[in-house]
Amino acid sequence: SGGLQVKNFDFTVGKFLTVGGFINNSPQRFSVNVGESMNSLSLHLDHRFNYGADQNTIVMNSTLKGDNGWETEQRSTNFTLSAGQYFEITLSYDINKFYIDILDGPNLEFPNRYSKEFLPFLSLAGDARLTLVKE
Amino acid sequence: SGGLQVKNFDFTVGKFLTVGGFINNSPQRFSVNVGESMNSLSLHLDHRFNYGADQNTIVMNSTLKGDNGWETEQRSTNFTLSAGQYFEITLSYDINKFYIDILDGPNLEFPNRYSKEFLPFLSLAGDARLTLVKE
Repeated sequence: SGGLQVKNFDFTVGKFLTVGGFINNSPQRFSVNVGESMNSLSLHLDHRFNYGADQNTIVMNSTLKGDNGWETEQRSTNFTLSAGQYFEITLSYDINKFYIDILDGPNLEFPNRYSKEFLPFLSLAGDARLTLVKE
Repeated sequence: SGGLQVKNFDFTVGKFLTVGGFINNSPQRFSVNVGESMNSLSLHLDHRFNYGADQNTIVMNSTLKGDNGWETEQRSTNFTLSAGQYFEITLSYDINKFYIDILDGPNLEFPNRYSKEFLPFLSLAGDARLTLVKE
């Protein structure tokens, strides 16, 4: 039900971006995506509750060519979100890495593979509803 | 500056939507727009600091056909925003009207001309930068 997209958001290196919202009642997965467009994502942060073979697993990845360009996944089982719950995730990044702070959950890191310094596109996809976008 | 767009945002009748951000240093104007798409806007809330013949005037309008479909303007000179300042505007609406609450400023009303009950599109245009979108 998500699908929210924010374009031309001013998320530059060194800034913080907080997104918050509510997870659906019987979610398969939901992702927060940051990049230059739908097809050029520097950070795909996917919480998989029950999706294919994955249970309660965080999958992170990036792509420059949409669904045809996914690169190597980075996974974490430090999974703290649950169905129906309010979530809040604060993102920041430098030329090398993304820093992901999940409220009441882990702090994760993910490489800034494309060395981006300006990321105007934010989207949420899947089984959650965004109610907060804050710099 | 400006140009931010949020699509698929869940702004339904009876809900509150707060947007906040910073006005540029020498602004001509900036607008907050709520509707179904760029070309279908139920509320165009335009703060004109110094734009054409208008000085410190709020202009509200709506359109179903983008720039070719602007209808009758509704104006207010109860203008409380200033260059470089943080602004925050809370919107809500029912089947008849939009209710516009400007932080430290006036409460304005504008007719829900197209009787919309679900408005998934939000954009900010012009001389300001959005840093908060909250339901």
